[in-house]
This record gives sequence, C-alpha cells and structure tokens, in this order.
Amino acid sequence: MSTSSILSPERRIELNPFDVDAWNLLLRESSARPIDQARIFYEKLVTQFPNAGRYWKAYIEHELRAKNIENVEKLFERCLFKVLHIDLWKSYVYYMKETKGHLPDFREQVVEAFDCAIDRVGIDIQASQIYLEYIQFLKNVEVVGQYAENQKVSAVRKVYQKAFSTPVLNLDGIWQDYCTFEKAVNVNLAEKLIADRVKEYQHVKKVLKQMEQIMQGLNRQAISVPPRGTVAEQKQVDLWRKYIAFEKTNPLRTEEVGLKAKRVIYAYDQALLSLGYHADIWYESACFHEKIVVELKERGDLTVAETIEQETSKLYNRATSGLMKDTPLIHFAHADFEETKGNYDMAKVIYDKLINFENSDPTLAYIMLMNFVRRTEGVRAARQIFQRARNDKRCQFHIYIAGALMEFHCSKDANVAQKIFDHGLKQYGNIPEFATAYVDFLTHVNDDNNTRVVIERLLESHEISTELRIDMWDRYLDLETRVGNATSLHKVDMARRQALNETYEDRQALFLVDRFKFLNLWPCTSDQLKLMGYNKINRLNSGNSTTAAT
Amino acid sequence: MSTSSILSPERRIELNPFDVDAWNLLLRESSARPIDQARIFYEKLVTQFPNAGRYWKAYIEHELRAKNIENVEKLFERCLFKVLHIDLWKSYVYYMKETKGHLPDFREQVVEAFDCAIDRVGIDIQASQIYLEYIQFLKNVEVVGQYAENQKVSAVRKVYQKAFSTPVLNLDGIWQDYCTFEKAVNVNLAEKLIADRVKEYQHVKKVLKQMEQIMQGLNRQAISVPPRGTVAEQKQVDLWRKYIAFEKTNPLRTEEVGLKAKRVIYAYDQALLSLGYHADIWYESACFHEKIVVELKERGDLTVAETIEQETSKLYNRATSGLMKDTPLIHFAHADFEETKGNYDMAKVIYDKLINFENSDPTLAYIMLMNFVRRTEGVRAARQIFQRARNDKRCQFHIYIAGALMEFHCSKDANVAQKIFDHGLKQYGNIPEFATAYVDFLTHVNDDNNTRVVIERLLESHEISTELRIDMWDRYLDLETRVGNATSLHKVDMARRQALNETYEDRQALFLVDRFKFLNLWPCTSDQLKLMGYNKINRLNSGNSTTAAT
Repeated sequence: MSTSSILSPERRIELNPFDVDAWNLLLRESSARPIDQARIFYEKLVTQFPNAGRYWKAYIEHELRAKNIENVEKLFERCLFKVLHIDLWKSYVYYMKETKGHLPDFREQVVEAFDCAIDRVGIDIQASQIYLEYIQFLKNVEVVGQYAENQKVSAVRKVYQKAFSTPVLNLDGIWQDYCTFEKAVNVNLAEKLIADRVKEYQHVKKVLKQMEQIMQGLNRQAISVPPRGTVAEQKQVDLWRKYIAFEKTNPLRTEEVGLKAKRVIYAYDQALLSLGYHADIWYESACFHEKIVVELKERGDLTVAETIEQETSKLYNRATSGLMKDTPLIHFAHADFEETKGNYDMAKVIYDKLINFENSDPTLAYIMLMNFVRRTEGVRAARQIFQRARNDKRCQFHIYIAGALMEFHCSKDANVAQKIFDHGLKQYGNIPEFATAYVDFLTHVNDDNNTRVVIERLLESHEISTELRIDMWDRYLDLETRVGNATSLHKVDMARRQALNETYEDRQALFLVDRFKFLNLWPCTSDQLKLMGYNKINRLNSGNSTTAAT
Repeated sequence: MSTSSILSPERRIELNPFDVDAWNLLLRESSARPIDQARIFYEKLVTQFPNAGRYWKAYIEHELRAKNIENVEKLFERCLFKVLHIDLWKSYVYYMKETKGHLPDFREQVVEAFDCAIDRVGIDIQASQIYLEYIQFLKNVEVVGQYAENQKVSAVRKVYQKAFSTPVLNLDGIWQDYCTFEKAVNVNLAEKLIADRVKEYQHVKKVLKQMEQIMQGLNRQAISVPPRGTVAEQKQVDLWRKYIAFEKTNPLRTEEVGLKAKRVIYAYDQALLSLGYHADIWYESACFHEKIVVELKERGDLTVAETIEQETSKLYNRATSGLMKDTPLIHFAHADFEETKGNYDMAKVIYDKLINFENSDPTLAYIMLMNFVRRTEGVRAARQIFQRARNDKRCQFHIYIAGALMEFHCSKDANVAQKIFDHGLKQYGNIPEFATAYVDFLTHVNDDNNTRVVIERLLESHEISTELRIDMWDRYLDLETRVGNATSLHKVDMARRQALNETYEDRQALFLVDRFKFLNLWPCTSDQLKLMGYNKINRLNSGNSTTAAT
C-alpha cells in the first residue's frame, strides 16, 4: 500500500492541498458531525475547491438538515450562478419547493426558481428530473375557472415542449407523458399537436443518442485540480473537447444562433467545472463568445450580441478571481479583450491588479501594460510606466530591455536606448539574458566600439557565470570575424582560447568550429561535430545541419 | 551469423568501402597469388587506406618476395615519411640491410637507414629491435687499426646510450648488454661510464613502466576508418588522448623543448595512424606544434622553431590531401595558420582549392575567403569574392546574407545591404533561413514599413513552407506588439489566427501565449505551456523558463 494509507487525511492535505481523496475522507467525517463543528471545514473545502458543485451541495445540505435557512440562502447566493452544476441546481429547486410553502407568493417563487434552473442548466443531459418536477408542480397547482385552467395547460405544455426539444435522458418517457397529457386535455386536438412535434422529437432523440455516445467516459463529478499531465487526465480533456466540438456542429440544427451558442457555452462551462485549472479551455471559451458576438452582429441581433459580450467579461472575471488567479495569461487576455472593446480604463485596472498581486513578479505585467499604454496613449505615457516599473523593487531586468527597445524601435532613438541599457548593466550585468540583449542591440546599431567595450567589461567581471562567459567570448569572436582585421581577430581568438581552455578541456577543435561556421553551414559533418563534443549545434539549428563539403 | 558470412568480400566492400575485415580477407587471398595478379588489389588497398602501415608493408613485402627491387623502393618512397608505422620502418631497415650488400657504399647506406629510422620512429616503445639490430650491425663491421676500432666503439656506445635513454620494451636487456659491452671494451673505465648513466637508465625504466600501463589496451594496429561513435571506438580515442597527455607532462624530464615536443608529436602521429578521420586530433596536433613554436621562440631556439613551423604546414598538407580532404574545417584551419604567418597567397590557394572541389558545396568556403580577403585586402576586394560566388551556380543563399551583412557591418551601408537582400529574396524567398535573416536585418535597422512589406510578400507566396509561414506570422505579431498601434496589432493578431488556425488545431490559447511573452518571461508556468501543446518554449529558452506570477 502507498504512504497515503498511513498518513492522516489532514497531513496528506498539508503535503498536497489538492489531494481530493483526503478531502473526501474528511468530508465524510464532517457530515456526521453537528454543523456548528463542521462549518470551518466546509469553508476550507469550498475555498480550496470554489467551483466544486458537489462540495457546495454537501455544505448546503448539511445546513439544511440543521434548518439554518438563512445560511442555506447565503450559500446558494455564493455559488449558484458561478457553479452551473446540475445536482447543485436540483438541490436548489428542491429546497425552494419544499421550504417555501408557507409564503404567500410560494407559487411565483417556485415557478421563478424552476424557470431560472431551466434557463441555466436546462440544457444539461441530466436535466429531465427538473423538467418533470416542474411539470408535476404546475399540474398540482389548483386553479379555478376555465381561463385559469387554460393557462395552466398552456404552461405545462410549454415546459413539455421545452423538455422534449432538448436532448435529455429519459426523453422517451417525457414524450409519452406529453402525448398522454395532450390526449387527456383534448383528444381531438392532441393528434395534430403531437403530429406537429413528432419530427422534432425524433431528431432530438437522435441527437441524444449521439450525445450519450460522445459523453461516455466523461467524469462529470471530477473536481478541478492543477493538471499533472497524466494519461487519464489527458483522456478527460480530449473527451471534453470532443463534446464541445460536437455542440459546435449545431447538432439540433437550430436557426437560432443564440441557442446554438448557449449550448456550446454550457459545454465549456461544464468542462471548466472539472478542468478549471486549464487556461486554454477558459480562453477558448472566451474566443467562442467573441466569435458568436461577431456572428450575431452580422445578423443584426445586437441585443443578444451585447448580452454575450457582457458574459465574456464575466467569464474572464470568474476565471481571474478564481482558479486562474495565478495565471497571468488569462489576465492579459481579459485586458486585451477590454482593449479591443475600447474599455481602456478597465484594461488598465486589470494590468494594475496583476501588478499589485503580493508575492509575485510583476515584470511581465509591467511590460504588457507599457505596451498597452504606448498603443493607446503614446510613447510619452508609456515611459511613465517604465519609470514606475524601474522603481518597483520586485521587477526583474527585463523591464530595462523592454524600455530600451521601446525607445529604439518606437522613438527610433538609439542613444536613449543605449543609456537605458547602460543603466541596467550596472545592476544586471551578471545576468546572461540582459548582457546578451545589450550586446545584440549594440551589434544591430553597428556600434562596434561600444560592443567591444561592453563585452570586455563583462569579461573582466568576476561575477558572471561560465555560461555567460562562453557566450560573450563567442559574441566577441563573431564580432571580430565580422568586422575585425587579421590582428584583432587573431588576438580575440587567442584570448578566447586561453580564457575558455579549462571549460573546453583543451579541445582546440571546438574553438575552431566557432570560427568557421555561418548560420547553418558547418565546416564538418554533424556526426563529426558530435564526436568532437561540440554541443552548440542543437541549440543553433534543430537537426537540419548541412556541411559545406560532402 | 551475420550477413557478412554470406556476402563475398568484394560485395561487402561495395556496400561499405571501410569494411576492414573484408579487405583483410582479400589481402590474405592476394598474398598467395603472384604479385602481377595482386598489384591492382594492393593499389586499391593503399588508396582506400593511405595511412595503414600494415597494408603498405604487406604490399612491399610481396614485391620484395618477387625481387622487384625497383617497385619496392618506389613504394617505400611513397609511404615511409608519411606513415610512421614501426613495423613498416623495421621492414625498411631489414630491406636495406639484406639487399644492399653488393653496393660499395653498403655500410654508409645502412647506417644512414638506421639513423633515419631512429630519428623517425626511435621514440616508439617497440623500437628496441631497431636499436639492437643497429648495434649488432655496427659491432659486425670489420675495422682495422686502433683509431677505427675506437670509432666503432664510440658509435656502438652512442646507439646504446640513445636506446637506454628511451623508454622502449626490453630496456633491461639493452642495459645489461651495454654493461657487458663496456666491460669488454675496458673493464676499468666501464665502472665509471655505467655509474654515470645508471640514474638515467633507472628513471627511463620508471617511465617505461608508466607507459606500458598507459598504453595498455591501445590498439595500434587499428586501421583509420570514419568514426561511427561506438563505445569501443571512444575507448580507443580516450586511450590515445591519455597517452598524448602523458607525453605532454614531459615524463623524461628533459630540459630540451625539442625532444619533449618530438615525443608529443610522435604520440599524435601514432594516434592519427588509427584515428586519421578524427579532425579534432589533427587540429590538436597542429595547435601543439604552434604552442611549441612559441615556446621555442621565447627560449631563442629559432632554428628548431622554424623546423617545427614547417612541420605544421606539412601536417596540414598531409591531412587535407589525405583523410581530411572532405573536412573543410581542417582546410580552414590550414588557411588560417598561413594567414597568421603572413602567407596570404598560400592561404588564398587553400581557400580556392576547397572552392574548386568537384561535387561540393562551396558556399562556406566562399564566405570564409570573403572574410579573409576583407581582413587582408579590404572590403573592395572582398566584394569581388562576393560577385564571384554569386555567379557560381553551386552556391547557396548564405552568400547573399554574408554579402549583405558585410556591407551593413563593415561599410555601415544599410541601403546596399538591403539591395543585396532584395536581390537574394527573388531567388531564395522560400528558404526560411534567408527570409528570417532578411526580416531580422530590417528589424534591426528599424525599417518597420519594409519589414511589413517583406513579411507580407512572403506570406502571400504559395511556395513557403508551413514552418516558415508560422515563423513569419510570429515575427509579424512581434513587430506589431513592438511598434504597432491597437488597430494594426489587432488586425495582425486576427489575420495570424485565421491563417494558422488549421496548423494550431484551433487552439486559441497558443496564439495568445505568443502575444504575451517577453524573452524568457512567460504568461503561465512551463507545465501549463506543455499541457496546452505549446512547443516553442524549448526552442526559445532551454529549460530555464520563469513565469511572471507564482
């Protein structure tokens, strides 16, 4: 047996806060305890797994068993619209139906709850129970008078029709029920009403079959945890993608872009309940939102377009305030989305929020903010971001490179760029990426003398790593090969050999290769290079080396 | 049994001209035939394995058995000084001793042959037989008169002393012989003479023991074949290096730089008999020559310095006319050596020879010649090389890049450089390395408009590969991220997604990553990138990725 059988669940969670099995053990213990003693645990549970419908449901039902109605309502408020989990919603309508009986507007409240549930999760293949309970509830309503009776029939019919136009499990049963219902209402009219709908029902039935097949193996109860790249996990990702792709084909053949979109978005939402740590799924969902908005606008359906556009912002907010909090990619995507919509202030807030995260490295966020400000307000304003970033002690060297290159590429001012690099060099001279970026820059502006000066300054330093030292010598040799005369080339070649002799274990041929290569042209075969112990070939060109002679 | 047992040796050699076992089978057959029928085979053999002493020896001995003295002499001439193989040389002195008896200057010729052998291969650990035969030969010479007798004794003593001051096998026997010899000459003097030398003998004996240990496992009969990177082969390379390194420590503790050098060079020469296809060993030997020249010059020993300098040229010639013919690296090293010595004409001849090789790609050689001419004659002369290369149909696109960058970096003329690139683009636009080099160039000179133009021209072409298409879209996005405004950035971002959608299998997040990275700063963890299927991360920074947030 593994160590997990020896350690306590508490200890296991300490070691791995995403050990779902350990949490489940604690959950079982907690549910047997009085709610007052279990509440702290439940709060921990839903904080750690904020999109786990199953855990919210367990928490709520425990409160409900203790009849803490106020707590129950607060909990539903916290999770219901963020976590579109079918069982959680079933729990909700059950709660509404069972506990609101004493209220004067009981009927209206329950109808509203059912309508809301159908709007939010009625698409779910497991939604049939909600439809049937809703119908039962409507049927049970006691009404007086023909008008009210007609209204009741019409309401029940509407829910039936909604149900059998949706691929849900037990579709046949619902259809049979509906037929019986119509025949009971009016046996003469029934035939026509049923005939009108039977084709739709049959098509939905076919789609349901396809869905059942496609969703086979999908673990919808899986709790979102950071991916570990296991085969089982990848299998789930593939299955979810297949399901989403299926919905994108518009299997119900609806003309309504809004409905098609809703079904795809529901598929994404369901996927994100289990794959909430997969940034790409979040982003693909957002991209789908945007695509649909374009489609709707082209069709002139501006109202729905605007709703979905707002949904996109909400989706991003849900991601970045939840499981994607530590994934700058999604914050950036959100900022970018707002930028394309012209919401520049909003975009800025998003960048700033990311920059102000505690215990995080804000460098990339600063650089992206700087880019954004340059685009929307110009270089002058972007310079202020650079100043702000420079003064932020958490920032890495990259900001200097970004700042310098902005001056070079946007203001076309090589002098200012060089000053910024020079300034950065004092602080970050021993960092390979910074040094190479600076030397690259000087090479590009053809400033041979300063290139030499900077390289020599770096080589004199005692702080630079062996790797950087080698790289700098290589660049020095490149420079002299490119522009030097025989004397300067020989001098640098010799100095380089002397300096790197130990590192290269006196393998003189390795020094030679660097003298006589050009791009992917090598002065001997790749086999020869490998045998000599030359290891830069893979770094420089991935596999497709050619040799000058054959 | 392997297929080799089924195929005839001739067929095996057709399949692999370096199948030494097959050649050996044919050699055995040939040596049983009359020489007239075997000569063609022997010529093939020594052409295929020009530095194999064993094969030359077999050829010569066959001619000798047939008493074709003229052929024997011609063959010795062809190989003796190029192939310092101990058995071949033993064969030579035997031949001289046994066949020259009828000549009036017989004694002088044989003495000369022995002296030459000792000069060339006397260092060899297996040279004792040569010393002993030489001594025996000298002892057998009949002389008349005390003066001649004294001369004879002195000549024998000299060879003895040379022998026991060299770590050769059977050193003890030689020493005992020597002692006996001195005692026979003059028992009174013997004691002092022996006492004078005993310390040296004892030290040499110690060195011999070390050598025996170091050379254990060294297969000195191995024939040079192109390396295949096997473990056994690497083992031999390591052993040779160990032996060479040992000689470099000057184990005999000689003050004479020349003698130390000679021993190291002999070790290199021996290694190259078996490792003649290892470019690095050739070059290391040349480097050692150069190092010794510097040392000798510092000590004021200019004559020996010059001899060794001439030996370096000869070494390079031996390499490039022999097994290193197809290895441009060694040709370049040779040209470079001549350049540093000021022999510019010689260097040019070497480059030209390499360029004129049939069936070879001369591009790299042209580029190196262009560099060389620029260094020694200036840019104007180098331009002529560029023109010559352009007109050479065998040349690849690299020459245009080299020519353009020379104008940019050396003449500091971006316009001329751009014209050259433009010219090359017409011919090589579909070659990724060329296109990216051109776009890089335009980026470095901050020519945003032309960068856009060139990228778009490439993207419109139907000939470019998917790989280049992706790369160009990446560069386009980089450009707009760097200098574009919100509109142009969005336009390119969208166009790129549309163009690459199929390639990226609709994985929108992959497009996003490229928007929001900066150097080695990534907008999510490397695990996340891997899971998304983002595969550029390894190409861009080898493993040391950092993420902006933690």
